[in-house]
Amino acid sequence: MSEDRKTKSPPVPGVVVVGVWPETTGEQLEHLRAALVLEGFSAHISRGETRTILVCVGDASPMNMAALMVLPGVESVTPVRKPYKLAARESSVDPTVVRVPSARGPVDVGGKELVVIAGPCSVEAEPMLLETAHAVRSAGARMLRGGAFKPRTSPYSFQGLGGEALEMLARVREETGLPIVSEVMDTREVERMAEMVDVLQVGARNMQNFPLLTEVGRTRRPVLLKRGLSARIEELLMAAEYVMAQGNRNVILCERGIRTFEPATRNTLDIAAIPVLKAETHLPVIVDPSHAGGRPDLVGPLSYAAVAAGADGLIIEVHPCPEQALSDGDQALEPVQFADLMQHLGVFAVAAGRTLATADPARREP
Amino acid sequence: MSEDRKTKSPPVPGVVVVGVWPETTGEQLEHLRAALVLEGFSAHISRGETRTILVCVGDASPMNMAALMVLPGVESVTPVRKPYKLAARESSVDPTVVRVPSARGPVDVGGKELVVIAGPCSVEAEPMLLETAHAVRSAGARMLRGGAFKPRTSPYSFQGLGGEALEMLARVREETGLPIVSEVMDTREVERMAEMVDVLQVGARNMQNFPLLTEVGRTRRPVLLKRGLSARIEELLMAAEYVMAQGNRNVILCERGIRTFEPATRNTLDIAAIPVLKAETHLPVIVDPSHAGGRPDLVGPLSYAAVAAGADGLIIEVHPCPEQALSDGDQALEPVQFADLMQHLGVFAVAAGRTLATADPARREP
Amino acid sequence: MSEDRKTKSPPVPGVVVVGVWPETTGEQLEHLRAALVLEGFSAHISRGETRTILVCVGDASPMNMAALMVLPGVESVTPVRKPYKLAARESSVDPTVVRVPSARGPVDVGGKELVVIAGPCSVEAEPMLLETAHAVRSAGARMLRGGAFKPRTSPYSFQGLGGEALEMLARVREETGLPIVSEVMDTREVERMAEMVDVLQVGARNMQNFPLLTEVGRTRRPVLLKRGLSARIEELLMAAEYVMAQGNRNVILCERGIRTFEPATRNTLDIAAIPVLKAETHLPVIVDPSHAGGRPDLVGPLSYAAVAAGADGLIIEVHPCPEQALSDGDQALEPVQFADLMQHLGVFAVAAGRTLATADPARREP
Amino acid sequence: MSEDRKTKSPPVPGVVVVGVWPETTGEQLEHLRAALVLEGFSAHISRGETRTILVCVGDASPMNMAALMVLPGVESVTPVRKPYKLAARESSVDPTVVRVPSARGPVDVGGKELVVIAGPCSVEAEPMLLETAHAVRSAGARMLRGGAFKPRTSPYSFQGLGGEALEMLARVREETGLPIVSEVMDTREVERMAEMVDVLQVGARNMQNFPLLTEVGRTRRPVLLKRGLSARIEELLMAAEYVMAQGNRNVILCERGIRTFEPATRNTLDIAAIPVLKAETHLPVIVDPSHAGGRPDLVGPLSYAAVAAGADGLIIEVHPCPEQALSDGDQALEPVQFADLMQHLGVFAVAAGRTLATADPARREP
Repeated sequence: MSEDRKTKSPPVPGVVVVGVWPETTGEQLEHLRAALVLEGFSAHISRGETRTILVCVGDASPMNMAALMVLPGVESVTPVRKPYKLAARESSVDPTVVRVPSARGPVDVGGKELVVIAGPCSVEAEPMLLETAHAVRSAGARMLRGGAFKPRTSPYSFQGLGGEALEMLARVREETGLPIVSEVMDTREVERMAEMVDVLQVGARNMQNFPLLTEVGRTRRPVLLKRGLSARIEELLMAAEYVMAQGNRNVILCERGIRTFEPATRNTLDIAAIPVLKAETHLPVIVDPSHAGGRPDLVGPLSYAAVAAGADGLIIEVHPCPEQALSDGDQALEPVQFADLMQHLGVFAVAAGRTLATADPARREP
Repeated sequence: MSEDRKTKSPPVPGVVVVGVWPETTGEQLEHLRAALVLEGFSAHISRGETRTILVCVGDASPMNMAALMVLPGVESVTPVRKPYKLAARESSVDPTVVRVPSARGPVDVGGKELVVIAGPCSVEAEPMLLETAHAVRSAGARMLRGGAFKPRTSPYSFQGLGGEALEMLARVREETGLPIVSEVMDTREVERMAEMVDVLQVGARNMQNFPLLTEVGRTRRPVLLKRGLSARIEELLMAAEYVMAQGNRNVILCERGIRTFEPATRNTLDIAAIPVLKAETHLPVIVDPSHAGGRPDLVGPLSYAAVAAGADGLIIEVHPCPEQALSDGDQALEPVQFADLMQHLGVFAVAAGRTLATADPARREP
Repeated sequence: MSEDRKTKSPPVPGVVVVGVWPETTGEQLEHLRAALVLEGFSAHISRGETRTILVCVGDASPMNMAALMVLPGVESVTPVRKPYKLAARESSVDPTVVRVPSARGPVDVGGKELVVIAGPCSVEAEPMLLETAHAVRSAGARMLRGGAFKPRTSPYSFQGLGGEALEMLARVREETGLPIVSEVMDTREVERMAEMVDVLQVGARNMQNFPLLTEVGRTRRPVLLKRGLSARIEELLMAAEYVMAQGNRNVILCERGIRTFEPATRNTLDIAAIPVLKAETHLPVIVDPSHAGGRPDLVGPLSYAAVAAGADGLIIEVHPCPEQALSDGDQALEPVQFADLMQHLGVFAVAAGRTLATADPARREP
Repeated sequence: MSEDRKTKSPPVPGVVVVGVWPETTGEQLEHLRAALVLEGFSAHISRGETRTILVCVGDASPMNMAALMVLPGVESVTPVRKPYKLAARESSVDPTVVRVPSARGPVDVGGKELVVIAGPCSVEAEPMLLETAHAVRSAGARMLRGGAFKPRTSPYSFQGLGGEALEMLARVREETGLPIVSEVMDTREVERMAEMVDVLQVGARNMQNFPLLTEVGRTRRPVLLKRGLSARIEELLMAAEYVMAQGNRNVILCERGIRTFEPATRNTLDIAAIPVLKAETHLPVIVDPSHAGGRPDLVGPLSYAAVAAGADGLIIEVHPCPEQALSDGDQALEPVQFADLMQHLGVFAVAAGRTLATADPARREP
C-alpha cells in the first residue's frame, strides 16, 4: 500500500526563500530565476529597498536546497517552516500592497494610506446604491461594498439581486469612480464576478470552501478574504495560502469578529488578530467593525481601536435608511454617522502614522 | 424605495400544517391537496398511524389561512412559527425515516435499527478500500464512508483522488452491497456525485455553503448534513431547511463536535444536541465520534453515549492501517477495534430500545 | 536577585512512584516507608490486587531518585511527569473509591455501584426537604444534595438559608440515613461545614478559588469538585491537586457542562471529559446533567449518556414543586420524573457493567 | 411552604432613581433624603452639572413609588429595570470617578486623565520592586501593581510572598508615592489587605466569589474588579453590584480577555466590552493588555486599541528582568519597553481626548 501511496499522492511542495547578494543586477537576477526554473522551482522576485529575495515553490528536499546554494548570486537559502508558506512574513521583503486599479487612479491597500470601504450590506436598488456611493465617497471612502449574492441563514430571506445587482454596481462605479467589492459564493460564478467587480470578497462562511478559494486564486482579481466565525488565525492564513498557491498574491485579510459566549455583541472582535497577523504575514489586514459588533453605536469605537492596533483599512456598512434595509440593517450606519466617524477616524489615523482620504474636494465644490 | 423593494424581493413564504379529520379517505385527501394547490400552496402529505397532515408551503397570510379552514376535510390549520419550517418537528406526523436504496435491500436511517456507517477518511487505494469494506460490513456496518474530495486545511495536503475514488467506491459497492456515503464540496460536482454515490455528505465547513445546499436539495439523493464547527443547533436546522426547500426531504443530521476552548479533544461533542434535535425536528440524527474526539480511545465511549442519548446512527472512521492513512489517521480505528466497539454497542443499543445489525452471516460462512 | 529568589520561593516538589517487588511483606513495606521518610519524602501506600506502589512527595532531583533505587524492596522509581501528580492515574494502583461514611453503611463512589445524588438546588424548608429526601431515597438515590449557601449571580436573589439549612439537612439525614452533600463557598465556613455535612461541594465558580481548595484539603471530608464554566480538563485536575496536596485524597470530580456559543442549552455537557478523565486520573468522575442542560427534558438523555460514557455517578436536582423553587427551578425534576429516570438508568447501568441501587425495600413496606 | 418562603427569603429590593427639580437647594435635597429614609429607602445623592438625582434602594412596589412622586422637590421617579441597579448607567448623573487617595495627591480613575497602573506580576524582592516602581513612575505610571498572594494553577508553583510582600509594597509606596494595587483572594485577608493597600484587586478567577465580593464591598477601599475568563459583560456588572450593594461604590472594572478557541493569544481581548460597558454603567473601565495577549509584542497594540475604544486606563505588567520572573514573565515588558509604549500611548490618548501623565519631572532632575 505504501507503494501505491507514493504514486497516488502528490509530493508536499516546499517553499524556499533565496536571498541574493545586495549588488546583484537585474540581469543577474533574471539569470538566477531561469536557473531556479531549471531546478524545477517556480520563482517569484520580491524586491525591497535594501534586500531582494526569490520566493521559490518546488521540491524543498535538503539535497535540492544544497543545489540552490551554489547557484551564482545566491547569498542564503531558507526553507519556510510555517504551514502557510507564500503567506508567511518571510516570503516577502516588504509588506504587500494590494493594488486595486480604478479609472480615477489605483487604490492601494496595505500602504501608508488607511483605506475605508463602505456601502450597503446588499444592493437593493440603483438609486439607493448611487446615493450611498456618493455619500461615502464624499466622506472619504475609497471603495464601494455591496452584496449581489447574499449568504443568508434562512432560505426564505432575501438572497440578493444577483446579476442585476452586478450591473447596478458597474454603473455606479462608472459614475463615482469607486472600485467595487462584492462577495462571490459559488465556484460557477467566479469567472463572471471576476469580470464585473474589482475585489472578490470571500465571506466568513466560505473561508474554508476550498474549491471557491482555488477558483478565486485562478483569477488575478484582488481577493478580500474574511476570517471564519470560528477560524483560528492560522487557518485564515492557510485559506490565504489556498488562493496564493494558485498564483494570485493579491489577498487582503479581514478580521470580522469570532463567535464566543458573549451575547452583548454579534461577534467578538479579535483585536489582537491584527498585530498577530502583522507579525505572521506580509498581507494587508482590514477590519469589519459592522459585523463584529452588530450595533451601530459600536462601529466608531471598534474602528478607532482597529486603526490604533495597526489595521490597514476598514469595511463599514452604510445604508441611507438602515431600518428599511433588506439585510443587516440593524448594524448599518446612516451616511451622516459615517461622515462623523470618518472625521474622528482621521485623528486616530494620524496617531497611528497613517493618512486617511479626506472629504472628496470634487464633491465639496458647488 | 419601498415600492421598489416590494417588486424586487420575494415574499417570505410561510409553512402551514393542515390537519385532516381522522376518517378522511385517500381520495378526499387528494381532492384536498388539489384544492390547496389551487390556493397557491404546494402540499406534502405526511401520514401517521393515527393522524394525517398536509404540510403546505405558500402565502401564510391570515386571510389565506382562513380560506384553508373552510376547505372540506380540514380539521385544523396551524402555521409553523419556528424559523425552520419543513424541518420543524410539527411538519411531520412521525419521525422521518430516510431510506437509502441498495442492491441488497434498503438501509433505513431513523427507524428502530441503529445504523452504523464506517470506512476510511479518504479513499486511498482500491484494495485497502475493499478490505475495509468487507471488515466493517462483517462487523455490522450498514454503509461505507470514503472521501473522494477532501477538504484539507492546507493546499499542500492530499486532496483526495477525486473521480478515480468515485469509481473505486462504485466497484466496492458492487462487490459488498454497501451503499456509499461521500462528501461533495463543489456545486459543479453535485450532479456527477449524485449519480455515483448513495448518500451525499455535506461537510462541517460547508454547512453554510448555501449554493451547495441548494444544489444537493435539487437532487433526490439522501443528504448527510454535518453541523458546522461553530454552528448553533438552530443554524444546522436552517441549513437542512435550505435542502428541503428545494424539495429534497431526505436529510440526515450529523453532530460531530463543536469548537471550544478545551484542548484535550479535537472538538467538543455536544451530546445534548441529540435530544434537542429530537425535540425540534423529525429528521434523523447521527453522530460522528471520530471527528468529535479525534482520538481512537474516545470513539467507543462517545459512541455508547450517543446511542444512550438517542442517536439514530453513527459514522465512524476505520482504516486497516491508521498510522499510514493519508488523512486523519490519528483518529481512525483498526478493523479489530471497530468489531470490538460494535459488540459493546449492541448492548447499549438494546438498552436504548434499538436493534443493531450483527455480524453479517453471509460473511461468516466459509 | 536570583540569590534572593532561591531563599524565598519554595522548591517545586516532585512526586515519585516507587514500585515494590511483588513478594514484599507488609512489614518490609513499612520499613521502606520509614526509609523514604528519612530521605525526606512523605509516602502514601497504594495497594492493588497484583501490585503495590508508594506515592512519594519530596525532592525529585535525579540524585535523590538514584538514592531511592537502592533502598531494599524497591523495584522501580518513576517520576510523575504530568503537572497534576497525586491526581495522576499512575499515582494509584487501582481507581480511587471515595468512601462516604453513613449511619446505615458507607456509600462508595468510584466502585461498581453507580451512585446517584439527588435533592433540591437549595434548602428552602424542612418539610419540603424531608419529602424530597424520602422520595429520592425511595427511587434509589444514595445521597442527598441541598444548598445552604447559594452562589447567585445577583446580590438581590435568594442566597440560601445558611446555618439554618445545615441544621435541617442534619435532621433529615438523621431521619433518612442519606449522607448530605452541600456547597461551601467561604474559607471561613469550611470548618463548620466539615462538621455538619458528609461531602463538601466546591462549586464551578470556585474551582479556582485556591484558598478554598486548600482549606477543604485540610479537612478529611470527601470533596465534590465541580469543573469551572471555562476550565480545561487539566485545570480541573490541578484544582484536585490543590486539595490532595493538603493530604485529602477523597476528591470526586464532577463534569457539569462548559460555556460555549450554543444557546439551546444552559451549558454544553462535555461528555468526552469522562473518558478523558478516566485515562488521566484515578479519581471518580460524576456528572451533573441538571446544570449542564438546564432543562428537565434533557436530564434523562444526558444521564444515560453519562453512564454509557463511563461516569461513576450523577448529581440530579429534584424538587417537589419545581415551579415554586427559589433557585434553578426550571431545571429540576419532580420526584415522579426522577423515579422514572432511575428505572431507565438501571438498564443503561447494566449495559455499562455497573449496578444501581433499586427502590429502597425498607421504604416500600408499609 | 409558600408561607414559609415569604418569611424566610428576603424581599428582592428595587432601585429607584428620583430626579429633583433643577432649582432644588441643598437643604431641600437633604429634607428629601430624610423623607425617603422615612419611606424605608436608603438614598444616595448623585449630583451633576445640570441634573441631580437620588438613587434609592428599597421596596420598589408601584404603591411605594407612587408615594415617592408626591414628596416635595420630586420631578420624576424611575425604577431601574436592568438586573444590575446601582451599577447601571442611569444610577449616576455623571460617569463615576474613583478617587484613590495618595500622599502626593489623589489619583482619579474615570476622569479626563488616562491612568496607567504598572508593575510586576508578583512581588519577588524589595530591590526589584523599588527599581520597577521608580522606572514605571518615571515613565508616567500613576499606580503600582504587585501581587502578594498569587492565584496559581498549580499548588506547586510560587504562591506569592504574602504578608512580607505587603510590607515591601508599603515601603515602596512610602518612597515613590505610588498608590498600591494588589490582589485579595481570601475573605479572611480582606481586612488586613484593606489596611495595607490602596486598591483591592479581585482577580478573574474570583469574579464570582460572592463572599469575597461582599467582603470587599464592606470596606471603603477602591476595588479593581477583573472580568472572569468566561464571564458575560452582564455578569461582570452583577459582580460589581455585589460590591456596591454593600455600600462601596468605588469599583473599577477591568477587561482582561476572555477564553476562546484561538490559541495565538493567551486570551481574546474583548475590545467591544469597553464601549458596551460605557453604555451600560457609570463605573470606570480599564484594560489589562498583558494578560489578554500574553505576549510582550502585543501589549503596545492592545493598549493603543483600548484607549482608542474609550478605556479609562490600563494595567500593565513590567518586570526588570522578565525571563527571571517567578510568574507570567513571558508577558511582562522591560522598563525600557514600557517607557517606549507610554510615549506612543500619549499620542493615542490625545486622539481620544484624554491626557496622560508624562515622565515625572521630579525624577528627571538630577
